[in-house]
Amino acid sequence: MNKINRLTLKIKFSFHINFSDLPLVIEKKQIMKNLLIPFVISPLLSVAQSDSLIIRNIFNEALLNGKSYEMLDYLTNKIGSRLSGSEGAAKSVEWAKMQMDELGFDKVYLQEVMVPKWVRGKEEVARITQTDGTVTKVNVCALGNSVGTGASGISGRIVEVQDFETLANLGRENVVGKIVYFSRPMDSKHIETFRAYGGAVNQRGSGPAEAAKLGAIGTIVRSMTLAFDDHPHTGSTNYGEGENKIPAIAISTMDGDHLSKLLKEDPELSFYFETHCEMQEEVLSFNVIGEITGKELPAEVIVVGGHLDSWDLGTGAHDDGAGCVQSIEVIRVIKSLGINNKRTIRAVMFMNEENGLRGGRKYAEDVIAKNEKHIAAIESDRGGFTPRGFGMTGTPEQLIKFQSWAELFAPYMISEFVAGGGGADIGPLRPTGTPLIGYIPDSQRYFDFHHSELDVFGGVNKRELEMGAAAMAALVYLIDKHGL
Amino acid sequence: MNKINRLTLKIKFSFHINFSDLPLVIEKKQIMKNLLIPFVISPLLSVAQSDSLIIRNIFNEALLNGKSYEMLDYLTNKIGSRLSGSEGAAKSVEWAKMQMDELGFDKVYLQEVMVPKWVRGKEEVARITQTDGTVTKVNVCALGNSVGTGASGISGRIVEVQDFETLANLGRENVVGKIVYFSRPMDSKHIETFRAYGGAVNQRGSGPAEAAKLGAIGTIVRSMTLAFDDHPHTGSTNYGEGENKIPAIAISTMDGDHLSKLLKEDPELSFYFETHCEMQEEVLSFNVIGEITGKELPAEVIVVGGHLDSWDLGTGAHDDGAGCVQSIEVIRVIKSLGINNKRTIRAVMFMNEENGLRGGRKYAEDVIAKNEKHIAAIESDRGGFTPRGFGMTGTPEQLIKFQSWAELFAPYMISEFVAGGGGADIGPLRPTGTPLIGYIPDSQRYFDFHHSELDVFGGVNKRELEMGAAAMAALVYLIDKHGL
Repeated sequence: MNKINRLTLKIKFSFHINFSDLPLVIEKKQIMKNLLIPFVISPLLSVAQSDSLIIRNIFNEALLNGKSYEMLDYLTNKIGSRLSGSEGAAKSVEWAKMQMDELGFDKVYLQEVMVPKWVRGKEEVARITQTDGTVTKVNVCALGNSVGTGASGISGRIVEVQDFETLANLGRENVVGKIVYFSRPMDSKHIETFRAYGGAVNQRGSGPAEAAKLGAIGTIVRSMTLAFDDHPHTGSTNYGEGENKIPAIAISTMDGDHLSKLLKEDPELSFYFETHCEMQEEVLSFNVIGEITGKELPAEVIVVGGHLDSWDLGTGAHDDGAGCVQSIEVIRVIKSLGINNKRTIRAVMFMNEENGLRGGRKYAEDVIAKNEKHIAAIESDRGGFTPRGFGMTGTPEQLIKFQSWAELFAPYMISEFVAGGGGADIGPLRPTGTPLIGYIPDSQRYFDFHHSELDVFGGVNKRELEMGAAAMAALVYLIDKHGL
Repeated sequence: MNKINRLTLKIKFSFHINFSDLPLVIEKKQIMKNLLIPFVISPLLSVAQSDSLIIRNIFNEALLNGKSYEMLDYLTNKIGSRLSGSEGAAKSVEWAKMQMDELGFDKVYLQEVMVPKWVRGKEEVARITQTDGTVTKVNVCALGNSVGTGASGISGRIVEVQDFETLANLGRENVVGKIVYFSRPMDSKHIETFRAYGGAVNQRGSGPAEAAKLGAIGTIVRSMTLAFDDHPHTGSTNYGEGENKIPAIAISTMDGDHLSKLLKEDPELSFYFETHCEMQEEVLSFNVIGEITGKELPAEVIVVGGHLDSWDLGTGAHDDGAGCVQSIEVIRVIKSLGINNKRTIRAVMFMNEENGLRGGRKYAEDVIAKNEKHIAAIESDRGGFTPRGFGMTGTPEQLIKFQSWAELFAPYMISEFVAGGGGADIGPLRPTGTPLIGYIPDSQRYFDFHHSELDVFGGVNKRELEMGAAAMAALVYLIDKHGL
């Protein structure tokens, strides 16, 4: 770097320090005043330097001696998929406990939680029959929580819509007895793919319930992915209070677009599908919790977590094996560097994020019941991709402090420290006032894998996973040391 | 975003504007003065707003109607590998010309360049024979430009070293008649993996020449990758002026580490390898050039390029099919949005980056001979991964202008606008004073693929490739409009 560049960095940095000192209500004038003292920062600089050295050690440890990748290998390849109530889920509970015990965490325990047990059953079958008799098999999967069709399947004409308003306008007379196909794609223009997902996923979540209200006999949803391929993507649907639960499937984007094309030419074609899924009795399962006790303020807890359950089609590598092994790795790295954590650092592997959120709710209930003090909760549930930053839901003061740390992450090309964020499992902690932080990895590839058979170990890059764990450990270190 | 966050962004932005107005010699006092006027920026803001709208359109076009992915599909899957002088290389020249003609570029032409023709021949064979007779096959490939062993192969004891100094200290008496194994791994601690590569690749580039000086009969190099797997990675070696050219291979990291382990137990083990590669007569090939003529300043050229040749083991998807199709896509996007480019925008697909750099040198010679004015040259040769930024080699004024554009890329999570950078093919333009810019995608996965059979279309994500093309198009747009 030449002189000018160094100067630019300095100035950015000094700004930073100023921001962290800003009072809650920020006025332009106050900022102007603060701008006048940016070069008087030496005591703060030395603090930042020691933090930056420790963060460098954290990254070195995760990249040179990291255990996250081999843990993920075991979780996905030896245990496999982990849908709530399944054998895989039960094994993963045992494994997570054993893993944290082996790593010598101070305390490892299970937290009981009753979870729904939804079972896919035999593989789904689906086909299009055109009016000229041409039959085309298509790739589908039942949506999670859906009722099945049973062996006789269902068959009917299709009504294709892209939103609920259009469906409502069609009215019962045009929908009754038919299969509703929700075909609105995720919008590729979004840079953060979670926005594209957010803009389309109501079709999966509420589409079947909306279609049932108008007398539809089944629902097809175009898979929630930005990829154009042959793999259907599952995910929960929610029938809400509706009495009439109709079978619901996702169709691969290729077959879905093919269906749309055929419907334009041949609106009277018929669609058959057969699913064997069912919701069974609830079963006992567990959140798995491991922690290292704080040396000065043991009653103050920093949570870092992911969810242990996964959909059944793949092996839940990105969603959310990655978040689980990263959470364990955070504590392993902090322990192995001999960092004397002031506060208790707790890894929580939540159960049942995918189709019930029972684990997250149970954890928060317990925190409230015990009146436990949580300093922050961090969740990694956006895949094990290259780290980009964190998003935080908290008070303006907390946000300022959080953003003041951004400069420490610049050497790792981690620069997004944004307002807003958290995670499904830690969301129920919100009423306690705990600041919620979501880990933000790069999102471009996530929905290629998400909830499909492609979400397996081979889709995860070792370094990206490790860098994410290091970023999380660095943030946990800063929160532990400086509070939030 | 809440109020405070919006304010933070505003302040960052106003700073930006100030920086672009700063004189070359920056004094603290001058910066302090500039700090006093950050809120008087409306005319500059409106310019920035119109730029930001056009950049938004550029990203939309690349993400919604992008052609880079289908171009890459054709280049890698229909044409395949493209080593200089090969049939694939010749086909890729025809294809690139035809592709740019079809897209209606104003001028598409070939630039003649003589290139070396190195041919791998029959697949390599290698095995370890321990002193107890145990034989282990290992995965190797000849290094590019290496001489072959021929059918009889070579066999010998191994001297393992991690650097040239150790080798020199061993001296001729310990090396003569043996095979030198260079086993220094890339250093995982580096965040930018190109630094890890830079710290290890001299073993491949100069190792065989260094070993030959001391009478070695062959060289093995641990593959240049951060992954631990079974795939050997090729790449050029350079014998320099040495008379004695000895056969050279890369070994997969798994087999390489196994070899190191065995050598500790059994230093007298012998290694056999057989390679059938050879350097043949030079052949005529081409750089492929396509451009859209500037509407106001047609004599001023902005180059954007990648290299068309690739190693023969994979199909050169990331290295550097991605850079080629992104360069074509830059012009397609600018054309299709009806942007009236002031200056001539030229896509150059260089030939022979991998084992000679003849294309890059020839291009620069021509520029110098014709006294062509180049405003900037941008190269994409670090893979088709999610964009992180650009690096520039230029004057301090150019750097300030370049960095002043960073804020326009923030909505796309592209934030690295760093000093230093360029690309192998555009490097020879440096004597002309042309600012050289290297596109910086995320580097974590690059060396997993690089120069190995894994560098195929399936390793490239559509959105990541498209986002890169959009980032490059946005930068070309800014340089075209505002100069550099």
